Amino acid sequence: MLHDNKEEITRKTGFGFEVVRIGIRDAAKQRSLPDSIFTTDLESIVDDPTIDVILELVGGVHPAGDLVERAILRGKHVVTANKELIAKHGARLVDLAKSKGLDLHYEAAVGGGIPLIQPLKHQLAGNDVLKMMGILNGTTNYILSKMQIEGTEFADALAEAQEKGYAEADPTNDVDGFDTAYKIAILGSIAFGKQVPVEGVYRQGIRTITKTDIGYADLLGYCIKLLGVVEPIIDGRVLARVHPTLLPKAHPLASVNGVYNALWLHGDFVGDVMFSGRGAGSDPTASAVIGDLIDVGRNILAGGPGSAIPYGLGIETSPISDLVTSYYLRIQVQDRPKVLGVIATIFGDFDVSLAAMEMKTLGAGRGEIVFLTHPCLENSFCTALSQLQETGTIETVCNWFRVEGAVG
Amino acid sequence: MLHDNKEEITRKTGFGFEVVRIGIRDAAKQRSLPDSIFTTDLESIVDDPTIDVILELVGGVHPAGDLVERAILRGKHVVTANKELIAKHGARLVDLAKSKGLDLHYEAAVGGGIPLIQPLKHQLAGNDVLKMMGILNGTTNYILSKMQIEGTEFADALAEAQEKGYAEADPTNDVDGFDTAYKIAILGSIAFGKQVPVEGVYRQGIRTITKTDIGYADLLGYCIKLLGVVEPIIDGRVLARVHPTLLPKAHPLASVNGVYNALWLHGDFVGDVMFSGRGAGSDPTASAVIGDLIDVGRNILAGGPGSAIPYGLGIETSPISDLVTSYYLRIQVQDRPKVLGVIATIFGDFDVSLAAMEMKTLGAGRGEIVFLTHPCLENSFCTALSQLQETGTIETVCNWFRVEGAVG
Repeated sequence: MLHDNKEEITRKTGFGFEVVRIGIRDAAKQRSLPDSIFTTDLESIVDDPTIDVILELVGGVHPAGDLVERAILRGKHVVTANKELIAKHGARLVDLAKSKGLDLHYEAAVGGGIPLIQPLKHQLAGNDVLKMMGILNGTTNYILSKMQIEGTEFADALAEAQEKGYAEADPTNDVDGFDTAYKIAILGSIAFGKQVPVEGVYRQGIRTITKTDIGYADLLGYCIKLLGVVEPIIDGRVLARVHPTLLPKAHPLASVNGVYNALWLHGDFVGDVMFSGRGAGSDPTASAVIGDLIDVGRNILAGGPGSAIPYGLGIETSPISDLVTSYYLRIQVQDRPKVLGVIATIFGDFDVSLAAMEMKTLGAGRGEIVFLTHPCLENSFCTALSQLQETGTIETVCNWFRVEGAVG
Repeated sequence: MLHDNKEEITRKTGFGFEVVRIGIRDAAKQRSLPDSIFTTDLESIVDDPTIDVILELVGGVHPAGDLVERAILRGKHVVTANKELIAKHGARLVDLAKSKGLDLHYEAAVGGGIPLIQPLKHQLAGNDVLKMMGILNGTTNYILSKMQIEGTEFADALAEAQEKGYAEADPTNDVDGFDTAYKIAILGSIAFGKQVPVEGVYRQGIRTITKTDIGYADLLGYCIKLLGVVEPIIDGRVLARVHPTLLPKAHPLASVNGVYNALWLHGDFVGDVMFSGRGAGSDPTASAVIGDLIDVGRNILAGGPGSAIPYGLGIETSPISDLVTSYYLRIQVQDRPKVLGVIATIFGDFDVSLAAMEMKTLGAGRGEIVFLTHPCLENSFCTALSQLQETGTIETVCNWFRVEGAVG
């Protein structure tokens, strides 16, 4: 991008960038730039006094974290796309950069090329953010879109995503929600001005979603998306969570399919805002990294103090049992009289009221029932469900998921 | 917002704002703040040496332009929501602010609370923007959504928008596309780094759209939106235009309804990005103005040179006759043999090829035909259409509109 859009960048900004050194892992690999620009000695780059800005695109905490810190300590601005590093150590590193009058930007860490982080820091900064929900991982959204649109099972959709290069050989980081957890923690940290600890983010992946569940959800007017959600609850705490979510088809996030990402948020003054675009891939990532780099360049030329916006530590997260939302539940029962009555009564005992239902006989005296509940406390829903299992009313709890939006 | 979210703003930024004076037109009006804060002498505010920042929410070029300029000359930062002023005089005023080390921000001028201007200036700055299309006026989008969803005619939808306070008594500025023209000129100026002159923006409003056209468009898979569009064409020129546009229902902008606004853009690296939200109203506008004000506050405290990003004059615009796109055409003809053949032949003579067609007999030997063309030069389409009228093949040209996206 620096090469292809050199003229464009210079025309808009009045300056340009020179690539001094590129750190690599594998020196044997064939590359399109002269050999002399590459080195496997990454520390020699962050130590080089002729370099003004480091672009950290290594990923992970080690050694990237040490390299970023060392670069800042040596007076260099840093642009990074490293979500894990920022989610875990962002507060400390941004503070360090700020204290040295340096920039540390990380727009590419969340949502690929979509401007999310800086708009939250700047244009939306005056809002009390009341809720953020994002489709923040392209791999899982590709898999779920495929399951939704083509009726594929998870394993087949994953295999195809791996074939196309959208999913890695070990897909854990994506399909188990780690990637989304880092990203929603970062977004929450900016929106609430304090680092949301990654270990405080509830996390559930998409492996257990079946095409049966997607079919029932569809029948009820919902699609299933892996969402990262963060919202303030009582006493200055936040509830941050990543899990498969039934989303009404009319919700703007519901039509974000394939490898696209999107963030929807509700602020007290701005109301609903949504940003969408390509959330991964080398070109969109380059767009975000170069956007940050251009800002660093403007800052260096202006001799300004930079625009790193620090945030502190210390926000408390609430456990998922404090969540109040609606639930989707799919169970199998013995097809005998009074089963529905018993289920409704036990749920009622825990203030869980039912909003919608689908039933189907499975043959051999068994039936499958799907419920949507009205909003209730997660703790109540789970306790009622355990009790139903203990009393033997339910044969199998096939699956349950959280639901966004009003039901029934 | 400064009052309601005072704690929120201070918590995130470490500082606050004091409202010193508020300039008003009508001193007799009852207001919720002490009388002593109000004045009808606006110049006394921009001249007050104790004031750091002016928020200009007057609108229009006179006297707002003089006030903004005078404020800058007296060393004050300015935040404005004034699209007409920025569209007409942005290059000069931003340059003036920059030369004095001051900020001049105008996020609220386009898209209400949706962050658009700053993301274009910063996070997307490295991209060659290949096309931008926006639903940038809530009044017209409300009217068109109503016509689309409820089958209302324009006059009735306008009357209802006026009743609800979404449209003014004189709706010219909105329904004839002036407002959208200012906004797309501003967005183009930022994306291309040079002021797009308002007088170079082709402009057509929505008054001629009928529910008949919306019905045919719907049948063919399209909705009709008032879009602002800007794109580079040959030789460093841009083509900027505002007109009713048939948009495929699957396009992300097609589902932006009511008073919501949205901007879709395609950049060479970022790919497709879309931003949407509430494009007007006092709360979303406050969100954008206060976001800018917070940035000014950060800048003042840091003692930095500000982040005004100047753009020059001198971009050339192309006339609408240079446009290449598809067209929707609705005509009425005498229902006799060979009419279709003659039409297709004359269009063919001008390299206009037909992609889709709907026909209906109107009785009394007359028929109505709707065509969608493949992309062709506007000049060719219009010349072919004149020729068809001259030869008497067409009885009435009811309407024609431009179409976005592939047809047929």
